[in-house]
Amino acid sequence: MSDAKHDRTSLTFSSTVRRPRLSVDQYVQGVLENNRTILAQAITLVESNSPVHMEVAQEVLGKLLPYTGKAIRVGITGVPGAGKSTFIEAFGTMLCERGHRVAVLAVDPSSPVTKGSILGDKTRMELLSRNPNAYIRPSAAGGTLGGVNRKTRETMLICEAAGFDVILVETVGVGQSETTVRSMVDFFLLLMLTGAGDELQGIKKGVIEIADALLINKADGENKDRALIARGEFNRVLHYLQPATTGWETKAHMCSSLTGEGIPEIWTVIERFRDEMSHSGVLQTRRQKQALDWMQSMTQDYLRSHFYSNPEVAKRLPEVEEAVAKGELSATSAVQQLVAIYEKSRDV
Amino acid sequence: MSDAKHDRTSLTFSSTVRRPRLSVDQYVQGVLENNRTILAQAITLVESNSPVHMEVAQEVLGKLLPYTGKAIRVGITGVPGAGKSTFIEAFGTMLCERGHRVAVLAVDPSSPVTKGSILGDKTRMELLSRNPNAYIRPSAAGGTLGGVNRKTRETMLICEAAGFDVILVETVGVGQSETTVRSMVDFFLLLMLTGAGDELQGIKKGVIEIADALLINKADGENKDRALIARGEFNRVLHYLQPATTGWETKAHMCSSLTGEGIPEIWTVIERFRDEMSHSGVLQTRRQKQALDWMQSMTQDYLRSHFYSNPEVAKRLPEVEEAVAKGELSATSAVQQLVAIYEKSRDV
Repeated sequence: MSDAKHDRTSLTFSSTVRRPRLSVDQYVQGVLENNRTILAQAITLVESNSPVHMEVAQEVLGKLLPYTGKAIRVGITGVPGAGKSTFIEAFGTMLCERGHRVAVLAVDPSSPVTKGSILGDKTRMELLSRNPNAYIRPSAAGGTLGGVNRKTRETMLICEAAGFDVILVETVGVGQSETTVRSMVDFFLLLMLTGAGDELQGIKKGVIEIADALLINKADGENKDRALIARGEFNRVLHYLQPATTGWETKAHMCSSLTGEGIPEIWTVIERFRDEMSHSGVLQTRRQKQALDWMQSMTQDYLRSHFYSNPEVAKRLPEVEEAVAKGELSATSAVQQLVAIYEKSRDV
Repeated sequence: MSDAKHDRTSLTFSSTVRRPRLSVDQYVQGVLENNRTILAQAITLVESNSPVHMEVAQEVLGKLLPYTGKAIRVGITGVPGAGKSTFIEAFGTMLCERGHRVAVLAVDPSSPVTKGSILGDKTRMELLSRNPNAYIRPSAAGGTLGGVNRKTRETMLICEAAGFDVILVETVGVGQSETTVRSMVDFFLLLMLTGAGDELQGIKKGVIEIADALLINKADGENKDRALIARGEFNRVLHYLQPATTGWETKAHMCSSLTGEGIPEIWTVIERFRDEMSHSGVLQTRRQKQALDWMQSMTQDYLRSHFYSNPEVAKRLPEVEEAVAKGELSATSAVQQLVAIYEKSRDV
């Protein structure tokens, strides 16, 4: 929470940018026809922070909304070294071969503005990136997690309108990014390593508890026996945790992105999840709640940004915070002081 | 998050109330002398939502702050039936016998305004409530979790100024109350039941991960063997989870509130925690962060309340939310619309 407090919200506009070259209808038409050039341009539009672009982007999005929502949205994260790229490569390729159309997005709030992104280097998924049924989009560059969040959600909608029926949202797991991805997908997959030992301490707090499946990757060769043991251990731990999705039992599975073993099985798990959770209505409820929660979260981002970027508040904040941290000022008094400053400056 | 959105913040004032009978200095003096009558009145003052009372309360609190912070703050929660009351009775009584002064507070956002509170019935802890070294204060009645949060924190400070050196904050575990208590204490204790089986599914998501110790209560008679097995199981699970406190290993322990077995040992654990975490500086950092986080959280409560209670926003909100939930309106557009309404109504 404290990390984000001085951030500008993604709704804060800056700089002047020329109007986009295409009309709203051209974007809409191009996306619906799955024209890759226009698809890419539409996503770039959605990722823009310029007010002019945002206005057009929201118009485009509004017209595309009726065509969205039909894909299964799968979040993927994993401990470092768990082999996310090779898994997505193998998994995505298999899905394409079966006639699915797969979009791979990424949430990486750490990626620098100009170059980096976890998917920038398409050689990571060379096979998949050349598949005509796949579309790999690097993480929206720059800005806060809130900004990346909005951009990824809207990119997901655009991809759905373009006819992709499987959306894979990968995250590197920086900061709160797993929770962010969890809040925008139907199914959340956690990639693990073989070996049930100390390397597992590397799993971030709470991540196991938001997963709908654990998948032990690299279960091949000499690793296979260790993977079997790990699977047993994980299932034992999962027994003690509440499942991430009501009515669904989170289980540990194994696969090898190298041999392909277990890859079809995890898709069967996801399909079963979709069928059962659609039937029970849990999936529909989740999506509605996700949309409303996100709306509230953006509202709060806006209010917070408005408050903390107020010059009078910003001027006074450091000393107030110091006094509170030192125990010299009660937090309640501190807030009363800051709010009074804020309200006064708005009355002028 | 969505539960709280329409709540009035605890900083929102209402109704007219007479000025408190005592002067600021009388409150301060009485609390510092541990005058039980004035202590109770000071807490009632802090719990009041009246603006007049809040103003005096903050003055009192400001003068007491230099005398606070010396107690160890212990949060206690547990699965239903784990025996929180009997444990606190046994644990608190033992501490009093050893010369400690123990305050027991409660966080129960579910308690109705007039009567109920988890500690209202002092017969629950009859022995402890009659001990001159103990002070049992029922949960602040009524209002939101945010309000109960503020009241409990400030009550804790008042009790510290009155010389209590062990503060036990109990919670029933409704809603987000465990997280709230975790955010105001040094050490968080989770009471469990014997038997490592399915009853453990009753543990709320994430609660194990915020605990500094698990304590299997009712480890007596025939239960003892089961408790030993449960302890082993819990320790195995804990091995996979990141500890709640950096540099501290969360472990499972056993006790019997009936026979008193294990009760001194859990105090030894808490004392060791305090020594080690003070030495490493983790405790001081935690308290500073807690104060700042709380300040930010109150600020956000204020901003959110101000926004959602705006008549124009409130009028428009239901249809906007419905459109977003149905997927007819993008969340970004929704927020832009609401923010525009909000800003416009403030400009008038």
